[in-house]
Amino acid sequence: MTKVVVGIIGAGRIGQLHAKNILLSDKYQLKAISDVYTDHLKDIDYLKAVPVITQNADDILNDPEIDAVFICSSTDTHIDFITKAAKNNKHIFCEKPISFDIEKTKETLEVIKETGVKFQVGFNRRFDTHFRKAHDVVRNGDIGTPHVIKITSRDPEAPPEEYVKRSGGLFIDMAIHDFDMIRYLSGQDVKNITVKASSLVDDRFSRNDDVDTAIITLTFADDSLGVIDNSRQAVYGYDQRIEVFGNNGMVQVENQKPTNVKVSTNAAVTEDKPMYFFLERYNEGYIAEIHDFAQSILEDKPVVAKFEDGLQAELLAKAAKLSWKENRTVELSELR
Amino acid sequence: MTKVVVGIIGAGRIGQLHAKNILLSDKYQLKAISDVYTDHLKDIDYLKAVPVITQNADDILNDPEIDAVFICSSTDTHIDFITKAAKNNKHIFCEKPISFDIEKTKETLEVIKETGVKFQVGFNRRFDTHFRKAHDVVRNGDIGTPHVIKITSRDPEAPPEEYVKRSGGLFIDMAIHDFDMIRYLSGQDVKNITVKASSLVDDRFSRNDDVDTAIITLTFADDSLGVIDNSRQAVYGYDQRIEVFGNNGMVQVENQKPTNVKVSTNAAVTEDKPMYFFLERYNEGYIAEIHDFAQSILEDKPVVAKFEDGLQAELLAKAAKLSWKENRTVELSELR
Amino acid sequence: MTKVVVGIIGAGRIGQLHAKNILLSDKYQLKAISDVYTDHLKDIDYLKAVPVITQNADDILNDPEIDAVFICSSTDTHIDFITKAAKNNKHIFCEKPISFDIEKTKETLEVIKETGVKFQVGFNRRFDTHFRKAHDVVRNGDIGTPHVIKITSRDPEAPPEEYVKRSGGLFIDMAIHDFDMIRYLSGQDVKNITVKASSLVDDRFSRNDDVDTAIITLTFADDSLGVIDNSRQAVYGYDQRIEVFGNNGMVQVENQKPTNVKVSTNAAVTEDKPMYFFLERYNEGYIAEIHDFAQSILEDKPVVAKFEDGLQAELLAKAAKLSWKENRTVELSELR
Amino acid sequence: MTKVVVGIIGAGRIGQLHAKNILLSDKYQLKAISDVYTDHLKDIDYLKAVPVITQNADDILNDPEIDAVFICSSTDTHIDFITKAAKNNKHIFCEKPISFDIEKTKETLEVIKETGVKFQVGFNRRFDTHFRKAHDVVRNGDIGTPHVIKITSRDPEAPPEEYVKRSGGLFIDMAIHDFDMIRYLSGQDVKNITVKASSLVDDRFSRNDDVDTAIITLTFADDSLGVIDNSRQAVYGYDQRIEVFGNNGMVQVENQKPTNVKVSTNAAVTEDKPMYFFLERYNEGYIAEIHDFAQSILEDKPVVAKFEDGLQAELLAKAAKLSWKENRTVELSELR
Repeated sequence: MTKVVVGIIGAGRIGQLHAKNILLSDKYQLKAISDVYTDHLKDIDYLKAVPVITQNADDILNDPEIDAVFICSSTDTHIDFITKAAKNNKHIFCEKPISFDIEKTKETLEVIKETGVKFQVGFNRRFDTHFRKAHDVVRNGDIGTPHVIKITSRDPEAPPEEYVKRSGGLFIDMAIHDFDMIRYLSGQDVKNITVKASSLVDDRFSRNDDVDTAIITLTFADDSLGVIDNSRQAVYGYDQRIEVFGNNGMVQVENQKPTNVKVSTNAAVTEDKPMYFFLERYNEGYIAEIHDFAQSILEDKPVVAKFEDGLQAELLAKAAKLSWKENRTVELSELR
Repeated sequence: MTKVVVGIIGAGRIGQLHAKNILLSDKYQLKAISDVYTDHLKDIDYLKAVPVITQNADDILNDPEIDAVFICSSTDTHIDFITKAAKNNKHIFCEKPISFDIEKTKETLEVIKETGVKFQVGFNRRFDTHFRKAHDVVRNGDIGTPHVIKITSRDPEAPPEEYVKRSGGLFIDMAIHDFDMIRYLSGQDVKNITVKASSLVDDRFSRNDDVDTAIITLTFADDSLGVIDNSRQAVYGYDQRIEVFGNNGMVQVENQKPTNVKVSTNAAVTEDKPMYFFLERYNEGYIAEIHDFAQSILEDKPVVAKFEDGLQAELLAKAAKLSWKENRTVELSELR
Repeated sequence: MTKVVVGIIGAGRIGQLHAKNILLSDKYQLKAISDVYTDHLKDIDYLKAVPVITQNADDILNDPEIDAVFICSSTDTHIDFITKAAKNNKHIFCEKPISFDIEKTKETLEVIKETGVKFQVGFNRRFDTHFRKAHDVVRNGDIGTPHVIKITSRDPEAPPEEYVKRSGGLFIDMAIHDFDMIRYLSGQDVKNITVKASSLVDDRFSRNDDVDTAIITLTFADDSLGVIDNSRQAVYGYDQRIEVFGNNGMVQVENQKPTNVKVSTNAAVTEDKPMYFFLERYNEGYIAEIHDFAQSILEDKPVVAKFEDGLQAELLAKAAKLSWKENRTVELSELR
Repeated sequence: MTKVVVGIIGAGRIGQLHAKNILLSDKYQLKAISDVYTDHLKDIDYLKAVPVITQNADDILNDPEIDAVFICSSTDTHIDFITKAAKNNKHIFCEKPISFDIEKTKETLEVIKETGVKFQVGFNRRFDTHFRKAHDVVRNGDIGTPHVIKITSRDPEAPPEEYVKRSGGLFIDMAIHDFDMIRYLSGQDVKNITVKASSLVDDRFSRNDDVDTAIITLTFADDSLGVIDNSRQAVYGYDQRIEVFGNNGMVQVENQKPTNVKVSTNAAVTEDKPMYFFLERYNEGYIAEIHDFAQSILEDKPVVAKFEDGLQAELLAKAAKLSWKENRTVELSELR
């Protein structure tokens, strides 16, 4: 195999993003796209070269020519599509979260293990050049043993109330990426989690039994500590910073800016605000993750963001929500 | 009055530092210094101009010419000296913590209120140019209402075990400055506090029922959040950063470096490490705090770091220790 | 016309770079590539979709389906290909310099004017996001009237002696980009130029009557000043900075780094070195320039880097060489 | 000798600055101050401890108790005071420039040599922490052999016309500090100098046969190059940057800011402007230079900023003016 033949299930914003990057990659051949609605896809220029556009996902799942599927449909459909794809021996790239139901996620992990297909979860930030370098600095031992890992993760603006209602809440919808990143940087299991959270940005969160601002503290297996601070609204742009502090030093990643132009006037010295949101900030990470997935298939190597990583992040999200609700530290052992 | 006539009680490291800054200031006349040991003071050049060097603090406390005392002796002597000074109508500058016994601290507050003397506690960081500007940016409303306040506070190296034994522990010895700073930046009362802490740097802490690494989360009266991360050892130098994030923006203070020289070679681009420790980093703050204290006396203005601020910081330290010990969120109302 | 049908003449490093970017763009259809050697092109995967690969440039120049040509062959062939292409009514994108012979360049300008084809010269830096923003800040009047424009332009390592011999020298080979950039930023004609230059990096330059280090000062028509400093070897990477200083402020562009990871240890605080060389640094600029060229054709708009800009940069390179040789200020009027 | 007994001749702004720093230093005893006017000194609090305030400089020059004099009077009086002080065996600290007449400066150098007194010229920037570290990085060979040295030196606002008239012009009044700094960083003699300069900021300069904006290029003895850019008006504050680029790397010093507070809002990310002017920016350098002068006397060590350094800077200023006037490169050998 020199190219991975793929089908994409779900052609919303993220499905279209993957479609474009797949078309630009020389490691893939994009054979088919399915969605419950397909009308909006007719006007997209770069999709004209895709042979099959269908409303039936089975056209992809049953196609013997297709090596791998990208599952980008709504979260409640993931488990079903994953199970069918795995049973049909297709490698799977699945957007996060794998599901909203941890028991089902665990059962599905067994299916994946049995069939032996590759499974990569869409934790694109692991593939970001900056974060990956920070990760490598930690793994190389350049800063010694991590003592404290800090993540700042703030969106530029609150999503609409309709989105809030269906999102599953801040912990599963937003912090899940940070849970995965902190595990990726630490390399340790999480022992317990403690959340303090508030609704300060807008009433649409409290109205829906959700929060918009949170401080999440984690204790890892070796007693080192982690802390994540989330907000649904940073008016200056997408705020995505990490810091790993160890016994021999510290590694930090600052925000990315569109340009590094600096203007000095009588009034002030000003620089660019951070990039606006995830599409700008993680643009390269989205490309790198599908490149890496193809490499894993073509060279039969392990994936970087595994099913288990998806499961663990979901467990942390669940534990976080419980900690917030019950105002106490939650031991991960309670949930496993 | 054009100059404040002062006596200093306690001539250890911090007492000598204040003595030097007082001698260099044109707002003070330094009349006397007392310490249980005075031999070591004889060789200090700049102290030769001080008229009275005594082993008896009462020589200062009873001197009618002396307007104000600086109490820099060991913490267990503070309450006694404060009480005598206040009763003798002397203004008081007292190093932190005011005491290790909160009930006594509260009682002493009443004495201060009755006598009406000025009382300033040695929270020198409030007078740091950088932090003060950040504080002013917040007060001016430039970033809107604070939602999250973050403080990173790490010492460059762990103190000797002898010091650890007598220190009272990380929360009262080290984090107390951060508790005051977070109150200063927030302008809000603290509702509750939650601590996760470990001993990761060195056994000397766990051996003495202490920790060296901590994540401290605070909920303020308006439900906004604060988080402090402490470590007893940052190998790259004194790490003192703050960040206030609000609904209209963010203000940050980075570390100070000895120089801003940057060297680019084939190997790397390198900059200075942060200033080594508090004497370097807060040198100007130590000068500014005594200047401000003199102004408060000479112009009869309120002090910036009040007795109540000292008490509140001690309460937070006590609550933090309790939270760590009992592994739970502690409501400040439990302690008041 | 919805897509520009193009042929590329010359398939060396830069020709291949344009081919790849053209294939990835939805504004172009790449019909043909010619080169005196074509064997090396057979193994390049992404060229397999190109219908015509030929050793005869006329196959491109005479093809009536082709709307535009990219001239990426050696400098001595440019004038001939430009002339033929223009007479065949093809729009032209030509790499810099247009030629080594200014008289011929001037004559060819007349041909372009007569035929009315679009002509864009390969000054890709005008399309760099960072420099373009700096340019816009200046044009918007945010820093007032420019008084001093500074460009630092240093390559990461000296080219091999074979390259030095054929390069035409530092001024036409390397500084020509800086001459164009300083004109782009200033918006003014250059009155005179003064060069001080040395051979300090390596003997291969002095052996070939060339220099490797130069300070070039320019006086613009309004008496404002410019200064360019060039070196053939910056061991820390490609050094590309600009600064425009005006009566109301200053705009600066710093180097780009691969990541913004910062590592603090006991030894030092280190950051990434600048990106290695022009392919990394100006990667986006190469894409933006062909995008812009297509827009100019499809929407019949003026190009941003015109034939006249190529001619003016060549005149400045010639004047610079003369200034160096004769150790004097050269008035541009001497050459026009 | 444990303290240097000094007298200060000339009590204008710079004389008063030295007086204050001398009074705060434990290496000096300030015995006398002279000025043609002394009325304004009566109200200055910190001068009340100075035993002798006189209108006659001879009271200082002839006082056998005085070890050293600080000459801070107007430039036209320097040579006379230097000569008398040297003949009376007093060490001399003299503000720059030593004189406006290079022949007289040269003659006076002979007097200094004969008498053997210490002579330090007021090039305070050599004592700036940041520049001194950059200098040491160069001397340690960390960046190899310097190829290009760049200095940006811009004042925050143009001086009044009265000052311009008496200043001697930009090269002797302002650039002289930069000439000394570039010699200090290079460690090389200057071979030739080439100036391009304009009057762009304000007519008050052209009206007085002066310029306000200049690019000054220098060739050193080893053919390495230097470039200084000066402006009389940088609206964003005092702009004082240096860069030394060598065959093994580069060292840079950026501007100093009052605080490192950064504010991010929806509108922009803003930082402090550079410190306002030389009193703020070089405050520590002024203290360090008098400290170093005392050390040289007390420990009989060579001074860091010698008479010859003053002379060479004056020669460069003279050559620069000639280059500007005659629009040509001036060889320093023409002037020596």
